[in-house]
Amino acid sequence: MRGPMPAPLVVQKFGGSSLATAERIRHVAERISRARGDGADLVVVASALGDTTDDLLRLAGDITQDPDPRELDLLLATGEHQSATLVSMALHALGVKAISLTGAQAGITTDGRYGKARIANVEPRRVRAELDRGNVVIVAGFQGQSGGLGTEGAGNGTSEWVETTTLGRGGSDTTAVALAAALRADRCQIFTDVRGIYTADPRLVGSARQLGTIGYEEMLELAQQGAQVMQVRAVELGWVNGVEIEVLSSFEDAPGTLIREDPLVEQRNKVRGLAHDRNVAKVTLLAVPDRPGVARAVFEPLAEAAINVDMIVQNVGHDGATDLSFTVPRAELRRAETVLNPIVAELGARGLTTDPDVAKVSIVGAGLHNAPGYAARMFGTLADASVNIEMISTSEVRITCVIEEARLEAAREALHGAFELARPDPVDAAATARPA
Amino acid sequence: MRGPMPAPLVVQKFGGSSLATAERIRHVAERISRARGDGADLVVVASALGDTTDDLLRLAGDITQDPDPRELDLLLATGEHQSATLVSMALHALGVKAISLTGAQAGITTDGRYGKARIANVEPRRVRAELDRGNVVIVAGFQGQSGGLGTEGAGNGTSEWVETTTLGRGGSDTTAVALAAALRADRCQIFTDVRGIYTADPRLVGSARQLGTIGYEEMLELAQQGAQVMQVRAVELGWVNGVEIEVLSSFEDAPGTLIREDPLVEQRNKVRGLAHDRNVAKVTLLAVPDRPGVARAVFEPLAEAAINVDMIVQNVGHDGATDLSFTVPRAELRRAETVLNPIVAELGARGLTTDPDVAKVSIVGAGLHNAPGYAARMFGTLADASVNIEMISTSEVRITCVIEEARLEAAREALHGAFELARPDPVDAAATARPA
Repeated sequence: MRGPMPAPLVVQKFGGSSLATAERIRHVAERISRARGDGADLVVVASALGDTTDDLLRLAGDITQDPDPRELDLLLATGEHQSATLVSMALHALGVKAISLTGAQAGITTDGRYGKARIANVEPRRVRAELDRGNVVIVAGFQGQSGGLGTEGAGNGTSEWVETTTLGRGGSDTTAVALAAALRADRCQIFTDVRGIYTADPRLVGSARQLGTIGYEEMLELAQQGAQVMQVRAVELGWVNGVEIEVLSSFEDAPGTLIREDPLVEQRNKVRGLAHDRNVAKVTLLAVPDRPGVARAVFEPLAEAAINVDMIVQNVGHDGATDLSFTVPRAELRRAETVLNPIVAELGARGLTTDPDVAKVSIVGAGLHNAPGYAARMFGTLADASVNIEMISTSEVRITCVIEEARLEAAREALHGAFELARPDPVDAAATARPA
Repeated sequence: MRGPMPAPLVVQKFGGSSLATAERIRHVAERISRARGDGADLVVVASALGDTTDDLLRLAGDITQDPDPRELDLLLATGEHQSATLVSMALHALGVKAISLTGAQAGITTDGRYGKARIANVEPRRVRAELDRGNVVIVAGFQGQSGGLGTEGAGNGTSEWVETTTLGRGGSDTTAVALAAALRADRCQIFTDVRGIYTADPRLVGSARQLGTIGYEEMLELAQQGAQVMQVRAVELGWVNGVEIEVLSSFEDAPGTLIREDPLVEQRNKVRGLAHDRNVAKVTLLAVPDRPGVARAVFEPLAEAAINVDMIVQNVGHDGATDLSFTVPRAELRRAETVLNPIVAELGARGLTTDPDVAKVSIVGAGLHNAPGYAARMFGTLADASVNIEMISTSEVRITCVIEEARLEAAREALHGAFELARPDPVDAAATARPA
């Protein structure tokens, strides 16, 4: 029997690099054991060990260039099965009661989109039962189960038969946040190989500073722009469900960064961080006739070919024609050209130019959009650093410039200095000192 | 729609060494593709790739000396998940319709004895549905699912929750035969790294000859005595269900050995083959009081400690005491001593001796037991070869001697010669020429 105060329930997620060797797995188990010793009920989401997922993809690639998505999901899901059992064993070795569950056993049901399934429902009946039996519950991340009797109405490709699905790269973050939401956990901790969220990538910008707290929307923009600490969907899911997410290091015992609804926006430096993305190529359709239906004629075929179009800029037309530019992931540039070439002819455009050697750099902060001066300071800073801006796009919390990739480093250094990101922010200090 | 003649249904099982590399997987896929091209409906059971199972055991061993059996099963089952998906992908690459299923998806339910689960039921509803859709169905071997709603009455450790179980070493053979029985398949083919069943291990006895056909019981004795080509349980299961099992090479296109009810026993050489086992240690309790209850006092604690006692020999008593000898697997000798030491004192026996350096050698053939002269010829042959016999046991179809391990090779050569096992048997020639 527990005392009158219910134990706090914490969901912890450990990434692959935290589980790359037997020694690291034991280290993670010790960390879990300490948290358990402090009295928390724990659900632990495990990613595949180290490079397992890449190794399995290579194995499949040795067999066929075009693996069936259903088979690939069944293959990839084994990586997280393995790590979950090993973490559980490591806890047993420390005398901690624990049990591992597959995504299906943990009650995570998804739609039937292999390789990028969306969670349809979390029914953590068994997770609760195992917690009640005093177990630390280790859940295999990145996966769920579609079809069968349990998912009526899940729609989208589900069938009568039960199938294993995966949630896409970084899906273990999503597993953790979804479980935290379904279990109404007190906290969701994402353990990674960095100490938290920084004003810029600390491996690239020496003066980058760790943030104590950051709002969901800001984090979303940082992640989307290439910060790569957390999966975008996981942040969205946390935002919608009001799950407080803490990003922290699995190697150091140091405070991390808390992602949560942030009421203190007005008080502080509006630019919270920089993000960048090198996986970008620019496409321009020259002198496209300026008439209704043109955008659809261009972007519908790209969508049908599953090519992700990101920034779109259409210049002011002249002489009844306009230039239409947009970015695509670099790896999809070749396919985009194949799709677009006949369309250029059909539309009577002058031609198609592409540039694979560009990059995106962004400043991110809540309220940027409504505060004048930030965009101007960004563009001025880049000009002073001799960085040419090729495209611009903005959102509520972000201003992004497409620039020549070779100038990315110079751009980042200049912006980090101009927006004083190395200077500690009183809000961060307060957040770091929050009660545990 | 198929033609008026239903297609034959064949279950094929491929072992780990047949699937050790991407190239071998492609080779196996080509073989399956040819059989499919010949018009057969195919269910293929895949073992884990190469040394995957050992690698996973080593990984678990790096974490803890004493892995939890439930966690270990979940871990080991991933090996067969992986190979099943890869074989399926390799078939797709050849343009053959195929789908992989886990043991659970294939409807294989077991009891809850982790690491050595027994199959409780096979409900191949989905396998049939996939065959009807024109798929080659690849099933992950070695595993099943216990618990849940589907296994009421399965007994023995099952629970309300669905769990992954494994069938023990070589369990993929059992999966194949169980599926063949449930589907009433026309044939069950076990593809291995040898061409079939031999009169003795061909790597050890140069004159060893392949058998064209062998009875279930004979095969059972050969397998139990260490022939290691097929799992004992799989042969038993085939026997009980009347499944004809063909053992053949996955590397060569050569006829294998057919295991089936054998009506031709009377016509031929009764000794069909030799078997041996080095994984043996001998234990002797000296001068145990000769009174009721002694055997129970010795063997019950061993059974409770899950130590497999094999041959038991009790010498004629004298002066109210008797020597009791038996064999155990060599790896379990230390544990057996720990269990037995207090019992020796309790029973007032004179002491305990052990010998890890023994081996078993057996002659196997249907009807051996009722045909006088074979035992005498075996003992005489061993004596002529200066091989001392330490223990003897017999069954309906086998005579086994425990000998000094250092003399095993000499014993095998002598017995192979004495029973003319190198001489072709007319029955084998007839079986090899059977219609396909």
